[in-house]
Amino acid sequence: MAVTRSMPANEVKTFTFDVLPLQSGGQFGPVTLAYETWGTLNSAADNAVLIAHALTGSSHAHDAERPDNTRVAWWNPLIGPGRFFDTSRYFVICSNILGGCYGSSGPSSIDPQSGRPYGMRFPLVTVRDMVNAQRRLVEHLGVRSIAMVAGGSIGGQQALEWAVAYPELVEKVIVVAATAALTAQAVAFSEVQRQAILVDARWQGGEYQPGNGPDAGLSIARMLAMITYQSEESMELRFARQRASKLGVDSPSGYTDFGKRFDVEGYLYYQGNALVKRFDANSYLYISRAMDLYDVSEGYISLEAALRRVRSKALFIGIRSDFLFPAARVRRLAEQLSAVGGDATYVELDSPHGHDAFLKEWEQMNDALNVIKE
Amino acid sequence: MAVTRSMPANEVKTFTFDVLPLQSGGQFGPVTLAYETWGTLNSAADNAVLIAHALTGSSHAHDAERPDNTRVAWWNPLIGPGRFFDTSRYFVICSNILGGCYGSSGPSSIDPQSGRPYGMRFPLVTVRDMVNAQRRLVEHLGVRSIAMVAGGSIGGQQALEWAVAYPELVEKVIVVAATAALTAQAVAFSEVQRQAILVDARWQGGEYQPGNGPDAGLSIARMLAMITYQSEESMELRFARQRASKLGVDSPSGYTDFGKRFDVEGYLYYQGNALVKRFDANSYLYISRAMDLYDVSEGYISLEAALRRVRSKALFIGIRSDFLFPAARVRRLAEQLSAVGGDATYVELDSPHGHDAFLKEWEQMNDALNVIKE
Repeated sequence: MAVTRSMPANEVKTFTFDVLPLQSGGQFGPVTLAYETWGTLNSAADNAVLIAHALTGSSHAHDAERPDNTRVAWWNPLIGPGRFFDTSRYFVICSNILGGCYGSSGPSSIDPQSGRPYGMRFPLVTVRDMVNAQRRLVEHLGVRSIAMVAGGSIGGQQALEWAVAYPELVEKVIVVAATAALTAQAVAFSEVQRQAILVDARWQGGEYQPGNGPDAGLSIARMLAMITYQSEESMELRFARQRASKLGVDSPSGYTDFGKRFDVEGYLYYQGNALVKRFDANSYLYISRAMDLYDVSEGYISLEAALRRVRSKALFIGIRSDFLFPAARVRRLAEQLSAVGGDATYVELDSPHGHDAFLKEWEQMNDALNVIKE
Repeated sequence: MAVTRSMPANEVKTFTFDVLPLQSGGQFGPVTLAYETWGTLNSAADNAVLIAHALTGSSHAHDAERPDNTRVAWWNPLIGPGRFFDTSRYFVICSNILGGCYGSSGPSSIDPQSGRPYGMRFPLVTVRDMVNAQRRLVEHLGVRSIAMVAGGSIGGQQALEWAVAYPELVEKVIVVAATAALTAQAVAFSEVQRQAILVDARWQGGEYQPGNGPDAGLSIARMLAMITYQSEESMELRFARQRASKLGVDSPSGYTDFGKRFDVEGYLYYQGNALVKRFDANSYLYISRAMDLYDVSEGYISLEAALRRVRSKALFIGIRSDFLFPAARVRRLAEQLSAVGGDATYVELDSPHGHDAFLKEWEQMNDALNVIKE
């Protein structure tokens, strides 16, 4: 696969267990989760912090060797000794998502029965399944109580699911830029992305060979996703109608620029191309679909019934300019939790950066997180 | 080409002229414009109304035989005897856009020199070129003065361009859901759509045979475009997270639904499929690019200098929920025209329907238009 990137080899461990019952019925196994940890589990085994990454992320939320580099680890500035997720105090765990391509079981993993990658024979996995797999990992690590579960986007969906599914285990939950369920518009954007992959002749029903996957389709999917992670405001601030000064990366089609190349176009080509080098297209299909399908109320008689289960102290962080997970909906979820007696706080990041603000606005994120500090 | 649809044969005429100088330099010809007219030019030749259609539209803005059917003609409820664009009073003209596929010269037209469709040898055409071609048509029809030019989206860009390029000819201009230039976000959405077409193996550098074009790519482009023509609010009202009740149309890839099919997904497949049956992919590339490239200030020393040319009474109509041409930007354009001494009025449609509201909100549109009635 063309999906490995240079991750520090030092910290990534794996845990494999036999079988995971699936939300859709049936079961799947064996299941491997790749994970990293920072800090030490205390003797009470109650200082664990579980951090869940976004769609194309990995377990590398923090880089202890380069703690101030925001590019090498996705939540680096928030994790470390003395930081909000204080590794001198907490046992911080981040696992690659079930269905992913950074070491956990996913469609690019080898099916032990056939000796070939699962491809689309990998089962449909849901956010609930992802959380259930994490739960097995947490048990394996000897954790008895989880001090905090936190994540943004599909990571936030997982954090929410943890609080609903395992209320007795989670002391605090931090849901960033995530809601009870995606809007129709967000599902629509997501499906356009998947179709771009699925129509690529090189997708071949998911049976592509390593390095010979649907690069153009995945690149187009990423281009569209990047628009939805930003905002009209932030793109205007950064690109406006500037012409591209460099023509470094070709478009997915390779077709020469039509009239001229706008800066924003060159940026999107670059982002599409970068994802193709580091991510598996089938994983993209599975994880984005899990986001669409997630509805915290599923299996309960109502949303209220689901939220009534929560015992954790809950912090919801919305982003003013996020149109994928609109702030108003994050706020409403916090209000709905409060309405059924939950301990919920809502904080809004005043950022133009759209959905991605939770990976960019370090000061505001830190301030928001500190609201839930005891 | 699979691009013809059942248009009433009675009214579509064509006008061909030898050569059109192009904004990008050089020239192109012969140029044919397909057009329809309703009403009669008066003896002073000053009662013409020019109506410009949106990206995938045609000259069929009005259907005199079925004037109350909003599906057979795109601005039907606004045109006709006694309606705002009063055909008992005005000589109403609507021509298919230069670059289009409903009878005007475009990439699917036959190049007389080679006997084959132009394909990508068709020149890059701009909104200014489109307007200049229309001007030739208007002259050909004997019009001396244009009472009104009106249009939405790229039709609005054309209306604006008319007022700037030919101030002495245009008495009133009505710019609906259009701005001085697209935002970076809108250009980005547009380029993702084009790439979806360009990577389709059946696009073949634009040299596809009739009926054998890049259907999947064009369908994906349309799916994305349809999201940008609506709004989070309207999609939530219509689709929310409902499951599709019918599975009538396959997705562009034909891949079976992943978990389930959301209603919004089935809707997008339907819309993609419908466009493929009636529109040429190369025309889609050319016209969408013209939208991106349009900047009313191009060729002038400033936006103010361009707007200072306008002599028309101008009405700008924005749509509250439009994110492709944000209302705030339509309003700002009106203010900028006023600031340089223009007679500009801004009206905002209070609609959840996004960009498409100018093709849906008939009462509000009618009320807004009446603001500019003498």
